[in-house]
Amino acid sequence: MPGAVVNDEKLKNFTSQIFQKLGVSGEDADITADILVASDLRGIPSHGVARLKRYYDGIKNGLMIADAKPTVEKESPSTASINANNGLGQPAGYFGMNLAIEKAKKTGLGFVTVAHSNHYGIAGYYAMMALDHGNLIGISMTNSAPLVVPTFSRDMAIGTNPISLAVPTSKERPFVLDMATSVVPRGKFEVYEREGKPVPEGWAVDEHGVPSTDTARIVQNMAKTLGGGILPLGGAGELQSGHKGYGMSLMVDILSGVLSGAKFGPFVKANAGGEKFINVGHFFGVIKIDNFIDLDQFKNTMDKMIQTMKNTQKAKGEQRVYIHGEKEFEKYDEYRKNGVPLQDKVVANLKLMAEETGVKYDL
Amino acid sequence: MPGAVVNDEKLKNFTSQIFQKLGVSGEDADITADILVASDLRGIPSHGVARLKRYYDGIKNGLMIADAKPTVEKESPSTASINANNGLGQPAGYFGMNLAIEKAKKTGLGFVTVAHSNHYGIAGYYAMMALDHGNLIGISMTNSAPLVVPTFSRDMAIGTNPISLAVPTSKERPFVLDMATSVVPRGKFEVYEREGKPVPEGWAVDEHGVPSTDTARIVQNMAKTLGGGILPLGGAGELQSGHKGYGMSLMVDILSGVLSGAKFGPFVKANAGGEKFINVGHFFGVIKIDNFIDLDQFKNTMDKMIQTMKNTQKAKGEQRVYIHGEKEFEKYDEYRKNGVPLQDKVVANLKLMAEETGVKYDL
Repeated sequence: MPGAVVNDEKLKNFTSQIFQKLGVSGEDADITADILVASDLRGIPSHGVARLKRYYDGIKNGLMIADAKPTVEKESPSTASINANNGLGQPAGYFGMNLAIEKAKKTGLGFVTVAHSNHYGIAGYYAMMALDHGNLIGISMTNSAPLVVPTFSRDMAIGTNPISLAVPTSKERPFVLDMATSVVPRGKFEVYEREGKPVPEGWAVDEHGVPSTDTARIVQNMAKTLGGGILPLGGAGELQSGHKGYGMSLMVDILSGVLSGAKFGPFVKANAGGEKFINVGHFFGVIKIDNFIDLDQFKNTMDKMIQTMKNTQKAKGEQRVYIHGEKEFEKYDEYRKNGVPLQDKVVANLKLMAEETGVKYDL
Repeated sequence: MPGAVVNDEKLKNFTSQIFQKLGVSGEDADITADILVASDLRGIPSHGVARLKRYYDGIKNGLMIADAKPTVEKESPSTASINANNGLGQPAGYFGMNLAIEKAKKTGLGFVTVAHSNHYGIAGYYAMMALDHGNLIGISMTNSAPLVVPTFSRDMAIGTNPISLAVPTSKERPFVLDMATSVVPRGKFEVYEREGKPVPEGWAVDEHGVPSTDTARIVQNMAKTLGGGILPLGGAGELQSGHKGYGMSLMVDILSGVLSGAKFGPFVKANAGGEKFINVGHFFGVIKIDNFIDLDQFKNTMDKMIQTMKNTQKAKGEQRVYIHGEKEFEKYDEYRKNGVPLQDKVVANLKLMAEETGVKYDL
């Protein structure tokens, strides 16, 4: 049950004010607030304002630089590598994706890496920025803190490393894939823990690398980095092809981490790899559609693809076949109209930060 | 037990001769033979010369044009879209990837789509072509015949749509991810069928869309397109995140099928979508590393990533953590030295084609 249901514009404004009190510029604070609240609006509360406290603490502890500005280190007409200078991930990601968009509009392709960054929120936000331009496909990836166990290992050595692809359509809503390359994100374990339920088989392994459904033990192991952790998409061993999810995670890490010059794998955390800062890496790609095919033909075919999938015969007992992004657009419509639900704990944290910074809590 | 163990150079030569007898040019025949035998050498016999009979029949039945030449339909310094004119997939893929490599060497990025093509063999071959140039990352994707069931559906509406990424290293062997976006490829079901064993849970659904381990029934349903089929990576429903594999498959289909102007989803087969030809689509991408970061730094970090993963603690009972491509390189070494094993049925088909075309079978 939510602790409160709040207006998204007010929530954005409140969030921006908190950031500004910490020394973040008005522009960067607005961007970061917009990206966090967009996640809540899309029904992904784990990456929404529930994260604000962590960013707040990160800035206070000196792990994120409030007034850092991204700098372009290398550049060509269609490529760039950016140094986020250990600022918030959102303004750096926003800057990187906009640069990729600008390049793709001119040359047909824009690919941009970002290093020395931090958690950037939902991957999908950046991919979807391409949709505002009508003629672009957007790609967004990031590496992340090590919580996932490679196939046949017992160590948390890779991140949940998400990948997002946003594709424009004609009459249908856009196709928006936004997925972690692990079976589930960390947040799901916290939900099962609160409910006192064992997690399904195939989600995690214990500290010996053995499949486990013991939620409390898995969550504790992850928190204390005792070994074990989340399984890659596909699950344990090779029978369900967990090595594929492991490979997808490395793919994201190579493009976001290694190619950008950020940290990779087990080193994506504070005080690891000989470096105080977390040094997360992102990868953004933009493809201009009419460099390849007539734009109307492309968009009409996307509509047809979406309709074809949704109109396939349903499995026994199922009412609906979904397309990626559809559920999130429905949540967005609902929460824009009726307000964003926030959990008790999140509300308590927002009030705490309001009190400490002198921002008025009037959500 | 293999029907024969044959020398790979002889096998390549034999395969090329068969193609030439069917009217394929010497150059295209050599390329196609090299790609098929490369698959056998890498321990992926399902995409090796075991496929030759299907190509042979395809050309004889007029579904593949033996002497078709790919044409460039649209082009910019870093992008191109190609029409394979319904020829063999391999020469078209080879042409497309080489064009992407050429563009990336000049501009930092090269992305090329191919439409009106056919089955192109292993995705990894094309991605690995980038490795010959030292400074390039290779990407290869293709859509394929519909054998996979979207989450909550009961229809085979998407392909096993593979994705490959090849990344250079310094001292370690390259990272080569080459994976279908389904739990398993079709070939695995045929192995279980021959052995009379039920397939593991999570691989397939029956004609009602209900999870099934009944190998014979699943194979028969697929052959007769009665419904049911292979599950996307992640398995059935959303608990194991099958919707993610379904999304990855659509991602590959959008970039390979929709962006290229090829067919997509359930229409990737002969006489579907109002078109006689199968009209498969491919997508090739090449990224020049030193447009983003110092090449030596990148390659050394790749080595470190690979060593880090392989040196993680092993799960209980496991001896080894693998990196993607490692097993295939080991097979390659073994089969280059000791010969390529071919199954009885494959040998019988090779002999049949030799007899029909007058090519001498002396493997």
